[in-house]
Amino acid sequence: MRHALALAARGRGAVEPNPMVGAVVLDPTGKPVGEGWHQKFGGPHAEVFALQAAGARARGGTLLVTLEPCCHHGKTPPCTDAVLRAGVARVVAAMADPFPRVAGGGLALLRAAGVDVQVGLCEADARALNAPYLKLLSTGRPWVHAKWAMTLDGKLAARTGDSKWISGAESRRRVHELRGRLDAILVGRGTVVADDPLLTARPAGVRVPARVVLTASGELPAACQLRATAREAPVLVYTANPGKLGGWAADGAEVVGFGELTLDAVLADLGRRRFTNVLLEGGAGLLGAARDADAIDEFHVFIAPKVVGGSAALTPVGGTGAARMAEALTLEGVTFEPSGADVYVHGFAPGRVVV
Amino acid sequence: MRHALALAARGRGAVEPNPMVGAVVLDPTGKPVGEGWHQKFGGPHAEVFALQAAGARARGGTLLVTLEPCCHHGKTPPCTDAVLRAGVARVVAAMADPFPRVAGGGLALLRAAGVDVQVGLCEADARALNAPYLKLLSTGRPWVHAKWAMTLDGKLAARTGDSKWISGAESRRRVHELRGRLDAILVGRGTVVADDPLLTARPAGVRVPARVVLTASGELPAACQLRATAREAPVLVYTANPGKLGGWAADGAEVVGFGELTLDAVLADLGRRRFTNVLLEGGAGLLGAARDADAIDEFHVFIAPKVVGGSAALTPVGGTGAARMAEALTLEGVTFEPSGADVYVHGFAPGRVVV
Ligand SMILES: NC(=O)c1ccc[n+]([C@@H]2O[C@H](COP(=O)([O-])OP(=O)(O)OC[C@H]3O[C@@H](n4cnc5c(N)ncnc54)[C@H](OP(=O)(O)O)[C@@H]3O)[C@@H](O)[C@H]2O)c1
Ligand SMILES: NC(=O)c1ccc[n+]([C@@H]2O[C@H](COP(=O)([O-])OP(=O)(O)OC[C@H]3O[C@@H](n4cnc5c(N)ncnc54)[C@H](OP(=O)(O)O)[C@@H]3O)[C@@H](O)[C@H]2O)c1
Repeated sequence: MRHALALAARGRGAVEPNPMVGAVVLDPTGKPVGEGWHQKFGGPHAEVFALQAAGARARGGTLLVTLEPCCHHGKTPPCTDAVLRAGVARVVAAMADPFPRVAGGGLALLRAAGVDVQVGLCEADARALNAPYLKLLSTGRPWVHAKWAMTLDGKLAARTGDSKWISGAESRRRVHELRGRLDAILVGRGTVVADDPLLTARPAGVRVPARVVLTASGELPAACQLRATAREAPVLVYTANPGKLGGWAADGAEVVGFGELTLDAVLADLGRRRFTNVLLEGGAGLLGAARDADAIDEFHVFIAPKVVGGSAALTPVGGTGAARMAEALTLEGVTFEPSGADVYVHGFAPGRVVV
Repeated sequence: MRHALALAARGRGAVEPNPMVGAVVLDPTGKPVGEGWHQKFGGPHAEVFALQAAGARARGGTLLVTLEPCCHHGKTPPCTDAVLRAGVARVVAAMADPFPRVAGGGLALLRAAGVDVQVGLCEADARALNAPYLKLLSTGRPWVHAKWAMTLDGKLAARTGDSKWISGAESRRRVHELRGRLDAILVGRGTVVADDPLLTARPAGVRVPARVVLTASGELPAACQLRATAREAPVLVYTANPGKLGGWAADGAEVVGFGELTLDAVLADLGRRRFTNVLLEGGAGLLGAARDADAIDEFHVFIAPKVVGGSAALTPVGGTGAARMAEALTLEGVTFEPSGADVYVHGFAPGRVVV
């Protein structure tokens, strides 16, 4: 099952909003005779690849799969058909699929057909792997990544707002790699004003993220890179003042108005678009609002060994903040590693994954 | 010589304001036959230990030493006497000693006596090892360490000023270890008001650091731990308003008044006391003033994997700050390592040591 989970992870960025799935087929003697993974959205499922590779050797054998096989006609025929056709004696699934049209139905169908079905092997790892998929299904909101680059003295920018460059080339490469597997990059108005960012993945990744700006006021610069490139890659603007953004709409951006602009309303809308993973890239205002709402699931922090100083310089996470240090979010599953001259720290908000 | 440098480092914290020195004696065949290091202030020098260990085997051999042997009567007799008495044929020193009463005189004396003298082997490492000693000699100011503990979002405290605890037990242990080998711990008035710190090394280290408060206003709390323990370990208060601090003086603190209180005036006074290493422990105001003056030589930063948020929370280094990110201090010789759940980052201000 560990191997099946590793196979599943190869689909990251290419399969969403479908789950990542990996499968291994063992022959009746327990020898691995086929493997596969869900490679891209709409493409064949992991089980189909693995059973195809195994061919006749699957008969009487075992299928190990990281998620319950599907039993409905979606973009592809039900996997349960393929499983029964292959004649495996046993199916071991890491977890049931909460997707409403599956939700245990696949396992029940296999059991009814006389297959020996087990569920729950490495379930915690399987849940961690597909945490974004599971969150979108259960809450209607995408998994929220937050990324920031800061100096060793905790600054998001110098006192003047200048932030080019905090982190080094390797860290910026990693950020672009991250962008290229997510559905959207979100920034606040302040970042558009201060940095005029392009927010694309360079080089391009497996998917093209939508570029999203939050601005209640609608006071965006008339000329900026996002607006100028709105026909090349999607730009979405969430605002309480759509009337101010007619020019953006004319230039190809999608302008979405809300009576009151809240981060949760934005996330719900992104969820309706079946966005599975979104990335908050700043600035301090947006990240602060997200932290205050406990909306961030996964953190990516790049720390450059630089000291810029300045009591007026922005710190990465603004907002109200916790009143006492003991009330700070303590990240879980924390790792850190070098990223060029910088340190890359990665972790999860409490309770998001079992670690 | 590398081994001699490693021996020298064993004296760290115990020998200051003397330099750390290590020595190795080779017999005429090149075999190591004695080693030693300067173990504590006022105690015998490295050469003496090494030559004693070598005994008659030193005759015709080589003395490797990390610093020029002394030629003056200080707390101990001149090492050049011991070297000549031992009859070594060759002396290899990593660097000359700029101490005014030596300053090349030791090497010249040995050369005049017919000893083959070389200088400069591993000189950069020897200079880095004794950078605090060399700085005090050349500038009259101690080597300035700065330490802070911050959250992953760059906060020195929560928005209310609460900072207990940012870092974990292992990081606090390391800070106490650092304190215990330095001459003074400096804080600004704000830290005394917010945290009421004790600023001692617990458990005690090789030396007892003086606890130093900077306050131009002299507005210190009437009751606090520093004042209450001023007779147990030295407390020094630098101020522009000594009149306000009569109670502190009566309780055993030393109150030093300056017309204008500047960090440089404080460092010069600490240098006159032959303090070799001092530690700035915060808060943001003091660290900011020190960064603005480029007064910090060595950085010790503990980063806890916590996110506290808050645009009103203090960031570690206040002051004016650099205007542009490209003008930030880029640290040199940077290392990072786990410290319990925290990351410990260590590095030097540009140009302080050759790395
Ligand atoms: N180092 C890095 O990784 C990094 C990354 C990004 C940005 N930055 C720096 O961050 C700075 C900009 O940060 P900032 O704090 O000024 O601006 P920001 O967070 O980018 O934008 C704040 C603005 O976002 C809008 N917004 C909409 N909904 C919001 C919500 N729920 N919560 C909070 N804001 C919401 C508001 O615009 P309206 O006023 O229109 O309502 C608000 O004024 C720049 O200096 C930039 O260089 C650094
Ligand atoms: N996480 C950590 O590692 C850590 C460590 C220490 C403190 N802290 C936190 O830091 C906060 C306190 O920081 P802070 O910035 O308010 O105060 P601070 O830096 O401790 O003290 C500032 C005060 O120091 C005095 N001072 C004297 N000479 C100065 C100079 N040359 N430059 C600057 N200040 C000078 C001034 O007092 P006068 O007004 O009397 O002139 C000034 O108001 C607290 O919340 C504390 O919990 C955290």
